[in-house]
Amino acid sequence: MQITVLAGGVGGARFTRGLLAALPHDGHDGSDGRSQVTVVGNTGDDITLVGLRVCPDLDTLLYTLGGAVDEAQGWGRADETTEVAGELAALGVGPEWFTLGDRDLATHLARTRWLAQGLTLSQVTERLAARWGLPQQGVRLLPATDTPIETHVVVDDDEGGEQALHFQEWWVRHHAALPAHRFTVAGLAQASAAPQVLDAIRSADLVLLPPSNPVVSIGIILGVPGVREALRGTRAPVVGVSPLLGGRPVRGHADACLRPLGVEVSAAGVAGLYADFLDGWLVDTADDPATADYPSGLRVRSLDLLMRDQEGAARLAGAALELGRELLGATAGRG
Amino acid sequence: MQITVLAGGVGGARFTRGLLAALPHDGHDGSDGRSQVTVVGNTGDDITLVGLRVCPDLDTLLYTLGGAVDEAQGWGRADETTEVAGELAALGVGPEWFTLGDRDLATHLARTRWLAQGLTLSQVTERLAARWGLPQQGVRLLPATDTPIETHVVVDDDEGGEQALHFQEWWVRHHAALPAHRFTVAGLAQASAAPQVLDAIRSADLVLLPPSNPVVSIGIILGVPGVREALRGTRAPVVGVSPLLGGRPVRGHADACLRPLGVEVSAAGVAGLYADFLDGWLVDTADDPATADYPSGLRVRSLDLLMRDQEGAARLAGAALELGRELLGATAGRG
Repeated sequence: MQITVLAGGVGGARFTRGLLAALPHDGHDGSDGRSQVTVVGNTGDDITLVGLRVCPDLDTLLYTLGGAVDEAQGWGRADETTEVAGELAALGVGPEWFTLGDRDLATHLARTRWLAQGLTLSQVTERLAARWGLPQQGVRLLPATDTPIETHVVVDDDEGGEQALHFQEWWVRHHAALPAHRFTVAGLAQASAAPQVLDAIRSADLVLLPPSNPVVSIGIILGVPGVREALRGTRAPVVGVSPLLGGRPVRGHADACLRPLGVEVSAAGVAGLYADFLDGWLVDTADDPATADYPSGLRVRSLDLLMRDQEGAARLAGAALELGRELLGATAGRG
Repeated sequence: MQITVLAGGVGGARFTRGLLAALPHDGHDGSDGRSQVTVVGNTGDDITLVGLRVCPDLDTLLYTLGGAVDEAQGWGRADETTEVAGELAALGVGPEWFTLGDRDLATHLARTRWLAQGLTLSQVTERLAARWGLPQQGVRLLPATDTPIETHVVVDDDEGGEQALHFQEWWVRHHAALPAHRFTVAGLAQASAAPQVLDAIRSADLVLLPPSNPVVSIGIILGVPGVREALRGTRAPVVGVSPLLGGRPVRGHADACLRPLGVEVSAAGVAGLYADFLDGWLVDTADDPATADYPSGLRVRSLDLLMRDQEGAARLAGAALELGRELLGATAGRG
């Protein structure tokens, strides 16, 4: 089975790791059993720090799937040190609100070096994925686009006007607490989907949306020209997992991202953002499918969405797979 | 007193630290007592590694004078870690013969960032010198040139021809064991002396040459257009310390650097390289001034040259100061 996942950072990475755990025990495949998972990662969070190109979501995916992530934090390397950051601070270089760990920094150094040598971000990501053994797990990691894009957040400035902050500054430094008027993504309208991204959506047997941020993670991927059309056009069922449980994000600040869009901060509100291509939707038991206003024709199922541990993530991914298969059967029946 | 020092890496740094220790106890100044020391550092060893601009000699000077050097090694930071280098190796990035320490790497990151922002190497070096408290010690560190230059070593290749290696590759990877045919310095002929370098030589009260490599350290500085003329023209006595003791370098590979030039591997041979501007020359007790063929008019003094510790370095620098004062008195007498 060919599965394509559109992923942000921590939530997307944990869900995808759960998916890999769920797949071998899945047993309903009918094929030779080995599923191929293509992960399309958000690059809107990317930022250049101290001259180094940092791709937070891709790195979280790499480290999580590579077994090297800091589990408690959800991102960055386990057992990380910060010698370089300490000296950079002594030199007064770089923003003090963003600390790069030493081994994480090596990733950025390598990426920056390879980009300077003329490799695309896709090619760089392929090299990093090899470092972390993703191909051996049947996983292909693609950036949504090789075009450099950056999400900016428009907030009030101190003089009654507006200012645009890089998403990372808003998110990491201000913890998304400065009310956002809107999000703009520099470069997005002119961006092209990275090679294989559109094909991975069109030719998939199943497309999954993990419980990633619907605005600044999945929303950015959807904004890459051609991606939304590919999702509308694919014959694969598209199954998503709500990032909101009882109207609240488990982690991150999806609520602060939805409000500026005028979208209801709820599982139904998020489903509405995907209405034109979404076939199945997993919501928490706290969100009664019967009472909310979901897009018509959407198959909604409720279960415990909380990924408390890797088993919980595997259970959630298994439920998404199951719903996908159901929809696949329904589609096949229709065909 | 205004003292200008032309320095390479370890030997130059240790000598200069000794000079700073010797100066306050010097007592013969006659002025308000505070001497100003300008160190002109070699930049021929500079290399770009993993996209980062590394200036080995300037950094050795900074770390040594800043009290942060690895004393046993002579270069790099004390108590250094190599987390970044370990991960770079796992990623297959960068030469395996050059390990960048973590905190050292922060220096290169900052330098590369500042250069990319349009600062000159002089301006970058001034910032780094501030980090290490050099101004408070009355020390100004100048790169010999802001023009990027790189020393290359021409050696045999495997097919009966010749190849040029970057100096660092020859020195660090091959331990200067590949016989050198000649040294070429990319960019040197078109280089300009950095601001204040020529003036620091011309207006000095005393110019000192530490026991640095006469070919690939001091020789490179002398090759920067205008430097040699400034040394010939300065009214300051120029006093040097032989890097060879009984025909052998204390550390480094001065012998391997002198041979391709056809210069005798001896204190007298090195003095000959400086004959057009050298006034005083300190040689080891193993080198009898009476028997060697020194340039005419050169005041040669023999003493124990070995800088066993910081006290030894201070004693050696004190002897150079003393010889300088003698020559200064003689010059004043002549004037």
